[in-house]
Amino acid sequence: MRSNQMAQYYSATQREIDTPMPDLLLDGRQRVIVTRVSPEIECGRFAIKRVVGESVIVEADVFADGHDLVFCQILYKQNGHELQASPMKSLGNDRWRGEFTVSELGSYCYTVEGWIDRFATWRRDLEKRISAGQDVSVDLLIGADLIERAAARATSEDTGALRKWAKRLRENASDPSGAAIALDSELLKLVQHHPEREFATRYDKQLSVVVEREKARFSTWYELFPRSCSPEPGHHGTFRDCEGWLPYVASMGFDVIYLPPIHPIGKTFRKGKNNSLPAQPDDLGSPWAIGSLEGGHKSIHPELGTLQDFQRFLSKAADHGLEVALDIALQCSPDHPYVRQHPEWFSIRPDGTIQYAENPPKKYQDIYPFYFETPQWRELWQELKSVFLFWIEQGVRIFRVDNPHTKSFAFWEWVIGEIRTQHPDVLFLSEAFTRPNVMYRLAKLGFSQSYTYFTWRNTKREITDYFNELMQTQVYEYFRPNLWPNTPDILPEFLQVGGHPSFMVRLILAATLGASYGIYGPSFELCENAPLGPGKEEYLNSEKYELKRRELNSNNSLKNLISKLNRIRKENLELQSNRNLRFHETDNPALLCYSKASDDLSSVIIVVVNLDCYHVQTGWVGIDLSSIGLDARHSFQVHDLLSEGRFLWQGSRNYVELVPGSLPAHILRLRRWVRTERDFDYYL
Amino acid sequence: MRSNQMAQYYSATQREIDTPMPDLLLDGRQRVIVTRVSPEIECGRFAIKRVVGESVIVEADVFADGHDLVFCQILYKQNGHELQASPMKSLGNDRWRGEFTVSELGSYCYTVEGWIDRFATWRRDLEKRISAGQDVSVDLLIGADLIERAAARATSEDTGALRKWAKRLRENASDPSGAAIALDSELLKLVQHHPEREFATRYDKQLSVVVEREKARFSTWYELFPRSCSPEPGHHGTFRDCEGWLPYVASMGFDVIYLPPIHPIGKTFRKGKNNSLPAQPDDLGSPWAIGSLEGGHKSIHPELGTLQDFQRFLSKAADHGLEVALDIALQCSPDHPYVRQHPEWFSIRPDGTIQYAENPPKKYQDIYPFYFETPQWRELWQELKSVFLFWIEQGVRIFRVDNPHTKSFAFWEWVIGEIRTQHPDVLFLSEAFTRPNVMYRLAKLGFSQSYTYFTWRNTKREITDYFNELMQTQVYEYFRPNLWPNTPDILPEFLQVGGHPSFMVRLILAATLGASYGIYGPSFELCENAPLGPGKEEYLNSEKYELKRRELNSNNSLKNLISKLNRIRKENLELQSNRNLRFHETDNPALLCYSKASDDLSSVIIVVVNLDCYHVQTGWVGIDLSSIGLDARHSFQVHDLLSEGRFLWQGSRNYVELVPGSLPAHILRLRRWVRTERDFDYYL
Repeated sequence: MRSNQMAQYYSATQREIDTPMPDLLLDGRQRVIVTRVSPEIECGRFAIKRVVGESVIVEADVFADGHDLVFCQILYKQNGHELQASPMKSLGNDRWRGEFTVSELGSYCYTVEGWIDRFATWRRDLEKRISAGQDVSVDLLIGADLIERAAARATSEDTGALRKWAKRLRENASDPSGAAIALDSELLKLVQHHPEREFATRYDKQLSVVVEREKARFSTWYELFPRSCSPEPGHHGTFRDCEGWLPYVASMGFDVIYLPPIHPIGKTFRKGKNNSLPAQPDDLGSPWAIGSLEGGHKSIHPELGTLQDFQRFLSKAADHGLEVALDIALQCSPDHPYVRQHPEWFSIRPDGTIQYAENPPKKYQDIYPFYFETPQWRELWQELKSVFLFWIEQGVRIFRVDNPHTKSFAFWEWVIGEIRTQHPDVLFLSEAFTRPNVMYRLAKLGFSQSYTYFTWRNTKREITDYFNELMQTQVYEYFRPNLWPNTPDILPEFLQVGGHPSFMVRLILAATLGASYGIYGPSFELCENAPLGPGKEEYLNSEKYELKRRELNSNNSLKNLISKLNRIRKENLELQSNRNLRFHETDNPALLCYSKASDDLSSVIIVVVNLDCYHVQTGWVGIDLSSIGLDARHSFQVHDLLSEGRFLWQGSRNYVELVPGSLPAHILRLRRWVRTERDFDYYL
Repeated sequence: MRSNQMAQYYSATQREIDTPMPDLLLDGRQRVIVTRVSPEIECGRFAIKRVVGESVIVEADVFADGHDLVFCQILYKQNGHELQASPMKSLGNDRWRGEFTVSELGSYCYTVEGWIDRFATWRRDLEKRISAGQDVSVDLLIGADLIERAAARATSEDTGALRKWAKRLRENASDPSGAAIALDSELLKLVQHHPEREFATRYDKQLSVVVEREKARFSTWYELFPRSCSPEPGHHGTFRDCEGWLPYVASMGFDVIYLPPIHPIGKTFRKGKNNSLPAQPDDLGSPWAIGSLEGGHKSIHPELGTLQDFQRFLSKAADHGLEVALDIALQCSPDHPYVRQHPEWFSIRPDGTIQYAENPPKKYQDIYPFYFETPQWRELWQELKSVFLFWIEQGVRIFRVDNPHTKSFAFWEWVIGEIRTQHPDVLFLSEAFTRPNVMYRLAKLGFSQSYTYFTWRNTKREITDYFNELMQTQVYEYFRPNLWPNTPDILPEFLQVGGHPSFMVRLILAATLGASYGIYGPSFELCENAPLGPGKEEYLNSEKYELKRRELNSNNSLKNLISKLNRIRKENLELQSNRNLRFHETDNPALLCYSKASDDLSSVIIVVVNLDCYHVQTGWVGIDLSSIGLDARHSFQVHDLLSEGRFLWQGSRNYVELVPGSLPAHILRLRRWVRTERDFDYYL
């Protein structure tokens, strides 16, 4: 990358996709206004996100001076393809809506174009004149002119037909039959095929869509430390050992297996068990302290195996329907080769030492952050990009990026853009737990999915507010949540004190609120809940610093519930999207109720969860029937996919009773009854 | 105007004001994000509005990656002047706020700039390290470097002082006294004067403010037909006769006298009394049918007098503190000289006739609209602009523009922009009664003030919703309402059936809800309320088609109430702005309560109106005390500026009783009592 290329990239406020569309108001006779187009993120600075096969519903305010009718359409194109058009429909009050489908990976752009619909205006006025009994002979001649202009714009076949209509109209202009000719619906259709787009106005921004593969929207993650995978107690696990875990993980229905960093681990200032200092000689260190004499971000920790072993693991995982996600943590241990080769990529203190990571007064001397303000930032960016490309070459297509919010935003936008151009099937998960502005910015810059505050949202109010923000506002267009009830860093208070039932509740919420979720296992399914200490949300004896060995067949394991939930997710498309999440009322704050529905409401799932892990809770849920396409007059059957129970419900309000530990939730599929309509139905 | 100039004008999506500020992200090390700046209209496409002396409160989201502190400032400049800066303050959650004052007529632009505040970050971290008892000797050396860099940026005087601080710090870095030096507040202040704006980020848009004179915000209009001003029954009034009315209009406290069109009136298809056809020989026609053999838009109707008479009238009006607003109706009678000289500016029908105005099936054959889609649109625009300039040359500075929504938006943006550049003191009132998008668009394009739906908003719910939209949303930034209870075209149903009390209610609402309002007089103050017919809102025997003669001294006249209201408006600054309108609760839907307050809440007016013109209404109003700076513990005196009554109120809820026709409203000035605080106040 030459520096002027990079400068060029930054001087554009919106990244141009392919050749720009031609353009804007150049004539004072452009009377139509096109504005308030949605979706549009920060004035078009950022793309919205979709996966292949989804639609983009576009709305705009389109209007003109005076009383003429307007018409408008979406213009859209896939990068490198022809411009296409999709007509819009009036919603009233100058608002218009249309949609288009994105069928290929990559980038699309879209905008809206509007124009005066002269023929429709003329026809509307003509009808009024005729109703008022006015002489319309001159008006019919005006119409004949409009038809002839349509003929001039038409292709050969329609040209002839339109000319004939114009001639008939002209010949009968002073005759009573003229009006009938003018208002013929065939004529209207024909003219509408060749709209007069003279002085059409295009919206002044070109908006863009990044289209990813389906897994960007719907994915089920299992986080696993490879070094804990050995069947031999106390042995360091290898990729070969991990292969043995694949049937177990696959049987629970996961489709992504995510590995913490697999690179050589630094020795200098290595942390011991429970993050202690100094480490004991047999301590293994944190996989996030990347780099040693044995290599850095493009190397594999020798105790895990070889690059060949890793490639074999990728292939075996694929055989089980599992994709491997790698952790990219852009930081170095003091022993990382970069430290010797490129000291200019780190910040040097006045005493000549390299600045280690800090959150004063805490010091992380085993970690050197990259210095993104180095004058050699271009070389640094290129090298970091090559890390992604290296693993892409090995076959990895999903990256979980560690703490992206402590690296520069500009870097992420650039590197994701560069990689996506070459490899549009690569997915990026942002692991940023920080302020909302920062998390949302990272999503706008290009991350496919993001960790969320779900981990700490426990009450009905907290969950409702947060998920309405994520799924019922513009955030939906660019931020794809990936819900984690736990991570190696986070054992939330809710799980610490709620025992086994609390793990069930959080699992059910994660699996049904979000199209994507993940667990850090096997810690999660085994309900491990011992914290480092009071008031801490770190794990005691955290796997980050030591090997763990677990009894997967424990009676306590949630593996059967996980398997059932993931099967329900696979079988019910509504749960694979966040588009139509709606919360419903309940008269008990411990009961949370929400639905997910297909766009056409033909298929609906209703979830009711007892958020209280300690007590049986009962109450009435108040379903907004119109939001799921139901009629209050009819009863309807709901089928609990968890318990296989079936209930006949009636109207909006229905009673539920949920028991922690055994039946903490209903996941109800609405079973529509194909009923014969009887007269008395209308008298109910 | 050459055509390439016009093309240039249109190819810019935002009008450049003076030279643009330099510029945007060019370096990958720019870590700060500046976004979601407000106020911002349609991504900066349009300017916000202010009058001289007002402030612009600017907010923005400003943040960076990682944990460094950021700082930011508003950058602003008046057209042709130096760039200035105003610091912003953190509101939490990455939101920042600042303000600047616009002190001169014309255009200002503003944007926001943010950077990493390295010294503040270093100082914050140092405090934490010191608290934790860490060795900070290297950190103090880092601080000394930062101070030396500030010295290099500083002016000569501060340079020396900063160098001294750096030297002291360096010399004492390993000494316990070093920490005290580093945290010295004098040092902090000194460094903050010379911020390190390296890699600062400027918001990617330059936003603009149009600054008008105070009357754009606060004005009181009286509409008068000059031809009805003769003291002689049946005589056509003249400008000389109008002079006789000036003391009357001025005595009521108006500051704008607005005249319907004063140009020669066409004869072809002239409308008779009550809009009838054909006109009788002695019918005078509508002043909006502009143009005859005697001239067009730059001529004066001979029966009104000469151009000299008009100029004398302007001058006499000024002597009474009245500005004259002219009506600009861009349309022609068939007899207008333009029709012969420039047939290309009109639409020609297939039978060779010129297209008259229509709203099918209604025909307005006495009116030819301009054809804004003519290929000669450039010449048409220039000529129409010259109409404004002609009257500006005569001394007119306010134009009420008739039906701007039936002319092209592009024309208005251009013509107002052109005129305002030369004459920044000229005001434009948009008379568009149409859909909200269209009315708001005209305001964004540049109109200083706009007619509103107030004319038809009668109930508590209607008024609250509409005025919250106008004054509590972004609409406030560009749309300045001018409230009219009646116009020559509109006698609303509320006035038709509510009699004298209904005129009082609508007058009080107009005068206190809006900083600008107007009445069509003397019809209004005399409570004329006969409609053309059932279900019509036109006046019977409308002054648009005939002379009227009234008895101004009728007992029924509201002139005393008008005088009192306008005096109250002049004496109470809160009523001259729409910035702080707040509605308060009442327990009776016939009672409307709202307050207007100064920015600092030191001065407050509370208005309570009985919206029912037929019955005495009583009830409790529930004032949001915090919104007007009151403490629920103390009682407070309110002084009714209408009745001169005084009430001691206590807490939020207080009782009112309002009587239609005699005491339909309270306009209460809050009288703050400078009380001695006594201990027992705290036990109330």
